[in-house]
Amino acid sequence: MYNELDFELSSLKGESEGSLRLGASSTIAQYVIPELLAKFHKRYPKVTLSMVAGNSKQVESLLINNEIDVALVENSSGIQELRYTAFAKDEIVAVTGAKSVYAQKDTISVAELISAPIILREEGSGTLETLMQAFSQNNIDASLLHAAAHLGATEAIKHFLDYYDSIAFVSRFAIRKEVKARSLKILQIPGLSILRQFRIAERMGPQLTPQSLFIDFLFKNNIKVGI
Amino acid sequence: MYNELDFELSSLKGESEGSLRLGASSTIAQYVIPELLAKFHKRYPKVTLSMVAGNSKQVESLLINNEIDVALVENSSGIQELRYTAFAKDEIVAVTGAKSVYAQKDTISVAELISAPIILREEGSGTLETLMQAFSQNNIDASLLHAAAHLGATEAIKHFLDYYDSIAFVSRFAIRKEVKARSLKILQIPGLSILRQFRIAERMGPQLTPQSLFIDFLFKNNIKVGI
Repeated sequence: MYNELDFELSSLKGESEGSLRLGASSTIAQYVIPELLAKFHKRYPKVTLSMVAGNSKQVESLLINNEIDVALVENSSGIQELRYTAFAKDEIVAVTGAKSVYAQKDTISVAELISAPIILREEGSGTLETLMQAFSQNNIDASLLHAAAHLGATEAIKHFLDYYDSIAFVSRFAIRKEVKARSLKILQIPGLSILRQFRIAERMGPQLTPQSLFIDFLFKNNIKVGI
Repeated sequence: MYNELDFELSSLKGESEGSLRLGASSTIAQYVIPELLAKFHKRYPKVTLSMVAGNSKQVESLLINNEIDVALVENSSGIQELRYTAFAKDEIVAVTGAKSVYAQKDTISVAELISAPIILREEGSGTLETLMQAFSQNNIDASLLHAAAHLGATEAIKHFLDYYDSIAFVSRFAIRKEVKARSLKILQIPGLSILRQFRIAERMGPQLTPQSLFIDFLFKNNIKVGI
């Protein structure tokens, strides 16, 4: 098993070994962290990587139970036993299929939004929670929206938009490839900006382990939405 | 709440109403069913759609507890109280980044596979289970593989492959766009073909509800891997 002193010695020689067990909420796991994990594995090839995906609460529980070493979560979550550090900003944006009737304009008013079919995530999703908070803060009555479907996966929503004229709300990170390939289009909603913070959650106490290497690595590699 | 007689009458008039609550294992939820859901919603706009994603066992439990109406699962699962019907064939394929050293050839031998870094799904994943069964049936010792990482989401694996020369095993459905865009490349492994069946799971008993409409729709729309 992993031994902290061995780790320290091999770390000084630049040959860090051990395992890094990550947990990440679904947007982070799918779209934010894989590039960085690949780079981390190139830099520290002897550190065995694993990552589980779940919602923020699920990965926080895994962290408390010592089943993972680091959790990457959204800012809506928070448990007293854990220490949190912000590492990246995210934005939830309105998006539509490039061929949809809604893609003919670059902006959409709140009134137009309310008359359009909307595709939402499932109950319990952090993205849905952030969206509902933002609507409430902007005095938009979410009960007036026409939810055509609640789909429990961002990839499902993206594919649905290819075939159905509608509007969805997803993380900018989730649609970088599609926006670049012009198969999906972001719609601005004047006056509405939906931001959130991604955070690192750790157990308390000093650490000199693959997870501290990884957290350093996270901060050295500035993560920004590339669109 | 939903009323079966009302449904029957409105169904005869071609105006089916009600709600369809689906559960689907993650590959199906993300890559197989969204296009069909969008078409179904065009055909039956008054049927409210929702879909939760999970592993096969999780969505089977939701079905038994009447929290969803239909589950779409992989063939490795199976519970006596449920009725199963096959609806699509899937294939798990070896895939690599188009710029990786492994992409220089179209095929890879088992010996080459064993010396390459492999990216696998997490424990509990149906895709990982199918892969391990196939290895065992083909006398490939999975313990000889060099797992560079276990990642709990297919999207994470696809992004990781963009930045790290390695080989992963994923459903053909999951990489249709990337293979078409030539950012990922399928590698043939002579003698190894990893097939599975996607299945519809239903509770027992007669049904005339949005779920029967949906199941009919599934069969009328022949689902095939398009690559």
